[in-house]
Amino acid sequence: MRLEEAIKIIRETELDFEAGVKAKEYQDSLIKPRGSLGKLEEISIRLAQITGQVKYNITNKSVILLCGDHGVANENISAYPKDVTKHMTRQYIVGGAGANVIANANGADVAAVIDLGIDGVVDIDGLIIRKLGNGTNNFTQGPAMTEEQAIKAIEIGIEETFKVIDKGAQIIAPGEMGIGNTTSSSALLAAYGQFTPEEVVGRGSLINDETLQRKINCVKRGLEVNKPYIGDPLAILAALGGFEIAGIVGVYMACAVRRVPVVVDGFIASAGAVAAKFIAPGVEKYMFGSHLSQEPAHKKMLKLLGLEPLFDLNLRLGEATGASIAMSIIQTASKVICEMATFTSGNVAEAKEELELGWKKRLH
Amino acid sequence: MRLEEAIKIIRETELDFEAGVKAKEYQDSLIKPRGSLGKLEEISIRLAQITGQVKYNITNKSVILLCGDHGVANENISAYPKDVTKHMTRQYIVGGAGANVIANANGADVAAVIDLGIDGVVDIDGLIIRKLGNGTNNFTQGPAMTEEQAIKAIEIGIEETFKVIDKGAQIIAPGEMGIGNTTSSSALLAAYGQFTPEEVVGRGSLINDETLQRKINCVKRGLEVNKPYIGDPLAILAALGGFEIAGIVGVYMACAVRRVPVVVDGFIASAGAVAAKFIAPGVEKYMFGSHLSQEPAHKKMLKLLGLEPLFDLNLRLGEATGASIAMSIIQTASKVICEMATFTSGNVAEAKEELELGWKKRLH
Repeated sequence: MRLEEAIKIIRETELDFEAGVKAKEYQDSLIKPRGSLGKLEEISIRLAQITGQVKYNITNKSVILLCGDHGVANENISAYPKDVTKHMTRQYIVGGAGANVIANANGADVAAVIDLGIDGVVDIDGLIIRKLGNGTNNFTQGPAMTEEQAIKAIEIGIEETFKVIDKGAQIIAPGEMGIGNTTSSSALLAAYGQFTPEEVVGRGSLINDETLQRKINCVKRGLEVNKPYIGDPLAILAALGGFEIAGIVGVYMACAVRRVPVVVDGFIASAGAVAAKFIAPGVEKYMFGSHLSQEPAHKKMLKLLGLEPLFDLNLRLGEATGASIAMSIIQTASKVICEMATFTSGNVAEAKEELELGWKKRLH
Repeated sequence: MRLEEAIKIIRETELDFEAGVKAKEYQDSLIKPRGSLGKLEEISIRLAQITGQVKYNITNKSVILLCGDHGVANENISAYPKDVTKHMTRQYIVGGAGANVIANANGADVAAVIDLGIDGVVDIDGLIIRKLGNGTNNFTQGPAMTEEQAIKAIEIGIEETFKVIDKGAQIIAPGEMGIGNTTSSSALLAAYGQFTPEEVVGRGSLINDETLQRKINCVKRGLEVNKPYIGDPLAILAALGGFEIAGIVGVYMACAVRRVPVVVDGFIASAGAVAAKFIAPGVEKYMFGSHLSQEPAHKKMLKLLGLEPLFDLNLRLGEATGASIAMSIIQTASKVICEMATFTSGNVAEAKEELELGWKKRLH
């Protein structure tokens, strides 16, 4: 699907508020005090609005990992050398990374691992190669990508996500790997949200003060050099983003087009979500927040997205690890509405009437 | 096991700090930036301290539900009549309650449902009948239980928990049902923590202002009438607690004796945890916080326990529902330390050396 078409569908589609109202009514018929399951009830209502199904029964949860390198990594702004992108990507296929272990522990599959532009070759079966370059250009010297590359990366994200949905995914969390991509994400946040570099740059994978200052300067230079592009949402993504971040934009858009709930992970995945919201307004209606990252500016991103995190475990790994845990909580909400007994269901058997009277006898 | 013996074992047992140090070292060998999994890393270290196993591989998670009625419910302080205790207890066996659905959604079993003193008969196969009365006495008129009853309830809790552990449980969450038990829990918190009734009473299952005032007055009268008992930890539990709350105290103690991690659910389960800490100091070292309840005074309980909640989903159902979700997060932490690749493990294969250099090349 072409980007323009996806934007149009997302703009013209509304949530199913009628299904949401029915889900709310159904929640109130379950054998519990009204509202006692708090956010789990709210999640089940949003699931109904997104999917149009009052009881959306989640059994298949998928993680999509997108990998790419960043020219700005040459500025020595990360605690790790670029090669780590390559080695970790291999691990996502082998199965030993945090992404795999945490997805599996929460009953999710790593359904696709995509090389969108790693600097070098990762030669391993199972990796989906959709390379748009050997890393992006250094955004302190000009745009990281051409607009054509950014569009292509988004469209690949859409296409690969459609494949995962066609295989049965009912909820999706995109994750990423790319040394230097907290720098790109900070730059994107500054551009979209009109923040200063100081407000958006954090310590990523724990850099020291000197590196932090270098990182702030990089973002500053990136914003200056790319000034002509700042204003247009797609041009911003191309100028300051990365192949994998643009791919993530496509994942969110594909989920919106297909009305599949999508979970926003940490700092980089949230930068992609902000870009997606500016490029395809309405896409955020299909998103769930997951966790609050250790990266301080993550809060600003969630605010721009209008999303609330479900928890704060002080994570800063990325790789959809927080989102995998969140998918499990969202699945719990789905099971509540799909499986709990109601006052009128057969399950409650002989005690039904008494129980109904009991729970419903409210004193206010 | 007799209560006195359990108290002695808990007092004399220390956490395995050596295993904790090894777990920390092992965490730092996993293929991720150090500390990037935040609280998941801390949890894995606590699991090692508790169990003595550096890699405690959780596969079996159990919920134990304890049910009992409260004399104070006759004071009209709940939004629901006493009968609901009976009907919900039946549902825990049938499988349609929030407790069952949320436990199962998170891969946990409801391993035992125990009638410790429901007012009336719940006639259903599978319910463990260990009845100590038809509800407690109304604590506004004198002690809810005799000390003998409270001791017996704790010992039953210990005994039934040992059975669940013997069947393979590696982590346990006790939950409860008992109309009126937020009132008892508030009274316990006031007595143990030396708070005023106004500071500890909340709206439970959503009572109105008039009922709230009545509930505060009940706690006030309960504290006055039972003044002679307030000072001794066990006497407080007997005077103001409930059969199921005393049973929960036993669950925590059994877990501590057997060095099995135990997860503290919401307001009532936390009141039991506070009682347990005062009766058997040291028991809290085996506890994990789960969620922050909607009930405002829950924060005070967690503070007394020295526990942090892992999330806040605005829950107020009880029944170990929040603890079941937390067990899934704790299991995720267990899987991280048990299953992630290390720099030196075979998994990392040919890229091992480069990867090690890559991740370990830290700039500070």
